[in-house]
Amino acid sequence: MTNPLRIAIAGLGTVGGGALTLLRENAALIEARCGRALEVVAVSARDEAKARSLGLGNARWVKDTVTLAEDPQIDVIVEVIGGADGVAKTLVEKALARGKSVVTANKALIAHHGLALAELAEKMGAVLAFEAAVAGGIPIIKALRDGLAANKIERIAGILNGTCNYILTTMSREKRDFAEVLKEAQALGYAEADPSFDIDGIDTAHKLAILASLAYGTRVNIDAVHVEGIRRISARDIEFAGELGYAIKLLGIAQMTERGLMQRVHPAMVPAQSPLGGVEGVFNAVQAQGDAVGSMLFEGRGAGAGPTASSVVADVMDIARGVRYCPFTLPAAQLSAATPASVEGLKTAYYLRLVVIDRPGVLAEVTSIFRDEKISMRSFLQHSHQPGEPVQLALTTHETEERQMNRALTRIEALDAVREKPQVIRIEQ
Amino acid sequence: MTNPLRIAIAGLGTVGGGALTLLRENAALIEARCGRALEVVAVSARDEAKARSLGLGNARWVKDTVTLAEDPQIDVIVEVIGGADGVAKTLVEKALARGKSVVTANKALIAHHGLALAELAEKMGAVLAFEAAVAGGIPIIKALRDGLAANKIERIAGILNGTCNYILTTMSREKRDFAEVLKEAQALGYAEADPSFDIDGIDTAHKLAILASLAYGTRVNIDAVHVEGIRRISARDIEFAGELGYAIKLLGIAQMTERGLMQRVHPAMVPAQSPLGGVEGVFNAVQAQGDAVGSMLFEGRGAGAGPTASSVVADVMDIARGVRYCPFTLPAAQLSAATPASVEGLKTAYYLRLVVIDRPGVLAEVTSIFRDEKISMRSFLQHSHQPGEPVQLALTTHETEERQMNRALTRIEALDAVREKPQVIRIEQ
Repeated sequence: MTNPLRIAIAGLGTVGGGALTLLRENAALIEARCGRALEVVAVSARDEAKARSLGLGNARWVKDTVTLAEDPQIDVIVEVIGGADGVAKTLVEKALARGKSVVTANKALIAHHGLALAELAEKMGAVLAFEAAVAGGIPIIKALRDGLAANKIERIAGILNGTCNYILTTMSREKRDFAEVLKEAQALGYAEADPSFDIDGIDTAHKLAILASLAYGTRVNIDAVHVEGIRRISARDIEFAGELGYAIKLLGIAQMTERGLMQRVHPAMVPAQSPLGGVEGVFNAVQAQGDAVGSMLFEGRGAGAGPTASSVVADVMDIARGVRYCPFTLPAAQLSAATPASVEGLKTAYYLRLVVIDRPGVLAEVTSIFRDEKISMRSFLQHSHQPGEPVQLALTTHETEERQMNRALTRIEALDAVREKPQVIRIEQ
Repeated sequence: MTNPLRIAIAGLGTVGGGALTLLRENAALIEARCGRALEVVAVSARDEAKARSLGLGNARWVKDTVTLAEDPQIDVIVEVIGGADGVAKTLVEKALARGKSVVTANKALIAHHGLALAELAEKMGAVLAFEAAVAGGIPIIKALRDGLAANKIERIAGILNGTCNYILTTMSREKRDFAEVLKEAQALGYAEADPSFDIDGIDTAHKLAILASLAYGTRVNIDAVHVEGIRRISARDIEFAGELGYAIKLLGIAQMTERGLMQRVHPAMVPAQSPLGGVEGVFNAVQAQGDAVGSMLFEGRGAGAGPTASSVVADVMDIARGVRYCPFTLPAAQLSAATPASVEGLKTAYYLRLVVIDRPGVLAEVTSIFRDEKISMRSFLQHSHQPGEPVQLALTTHETEERQMNRALTRIEALDAVREKPQVIRIEQ
């Protein structure tokens, strides 16, 4: 019989507590599937009393988290503290430097320091695994590494933030506005007190940068991600989207283009009947387009104790089974530094919402700007309004280069009749 | 540099040809991801001229397929001949007996002989991998083995046969009848000349038996699968389903119940807006319910050269990378012999379509049988008809035990007013 794998869990919040519970509740099944036991020998977290209330069994309580890295009685560190720097980073660095394997759910850490940590892990022969950092319970990192490994990935697009998807879905179902639904989501615990990390797209950007690195064999580059959040999406946009057959989702999209790797996070209209269009509430989904496999969809819970613990423990099981991979599949030294491709060169269709004064000729002014910029209009909708009140116009375009659209927008915004900054949402087919 | 992995491909039909092409076209990427080259050194198939037309490169042509098993210059055999017995079985047995690893897309072989082959592979330290045998390009076997490994699987349900899903989707979209759509599918190459393997559910049963074994750690038991095909589904049923908010899909479902492992393949009504309800055309999908992760959906192409080759080559890449698993995750000796649970004990809701003569009191006769058998009715629909013509009635029930429903059916069928054998379709939520 092989020795048990000795695990330390650093951080006992939702994810850490979930991992502890899952390792205990499914211990027999996990041991059978690994051919050895997985034993939590130490835990560390801010609040000792709260941690003890989870039931620590034989695990030691460790006050100084970073000392876990130096304990020769520990094989694997599960880092679920969070944050790109601070204790999490110090702990992971020290553990890897000692040759200890690390499993983490920390997307910020991997998005910012993944390359350096991967180099360190490879040098020391340690595993660094982070399935739980992207899309919670969906095993998308393993799918890119193993199941789809024979494919050139053509495009990867995901709904990677459950908070945003919950807010957008609720706005759509209940025809309510952003601020109100956000407030409710905070009360329900679906959004943080400071929600900016989620709703401004930063969390999605971290996850996308990690997926892009795995899909394209490139160095993770969070700074190259174009990021827009969902604060500006209004109930009116969602209503127009519905009339046009679309749903609005916050997407993270990575594509290797002729001009380099384009990584972008922004609200997008997707066909309501498409696989991503049907992903509702707190669910996450990733659509991967491979040259051999075609379009694949992975859908599941992107957050919460159980789903995230499922991915954390799966990574630990890989280590227990002796499965060894470089953190980003390719050795860190072979990861290429992809040229970032700006969204200015993106070619896509657009939705445009204008608030204009109610007088003849406004549409002619807008369409003549489109004509000048060689943008071809696809559809046009106008909501009924009271006489004298501003008019809501929705226009969609055929495929257009983003820089053309930006030029047109500058001119449209300058029109006398246009009363608000125009709303623009990209349409993804 | 590690030596290239030497591969022989046995069978050069759609899948074999696809694997050959994929290994050639993505050779550089595959080599980078594996840290070594994958080289096709030999091929064997019925039609040499056709095989050569695919471009064999440096690969030798081998006439007697089974001799591939004895060639010391070959590390891995890719068996894509098909069939539960015959050459495929002989080749795989001989290869494993010599310690050669085998990758196969052959669901019939694994469903019928998987346990014995797994025992042989484990004894000889060889790999036996069959990702491509289930759901084509969807890496569901790896997901159960790795990504969801920490979960107790509560239920697994899949659309596992693209031919059936194509036929049912087309019947639904075009409001046409089974026989007509089948004929068209045959002309388009989506269905075989002898379609019984697909449309009678046998292919789905093979795939389900394999998934059940992986999900529950049980010995693959194809004989315990309850199988019904889609021949009896009419345009009328699909129309009623639509009115009730359902789509009809051929599902394979495995559940561990108190009475044992229930494996069943049958047409089922699923909510049209549910993840499985939205899977259209030749796509496959698998929904896995794990105790930690919750509900996960994997959707993708279940057949065709590219998707199946994607899974075949991914398995070969696992071997090249030195990843070693028991074929059914647990060692064969630890797989349990699950007690088969009969569908008689199933508790589910039912759809019932009756063709009755147009006279008062018929519904009262039916509902009094329901009352006697303690079946509670949920909804009732009747299509308009010409006076004097038989009436089409659709009824749905609340959750009922299948044996109660069977007793009621026997009595309903015996009613004077009932003109055809009643149609029954289970409803899955």
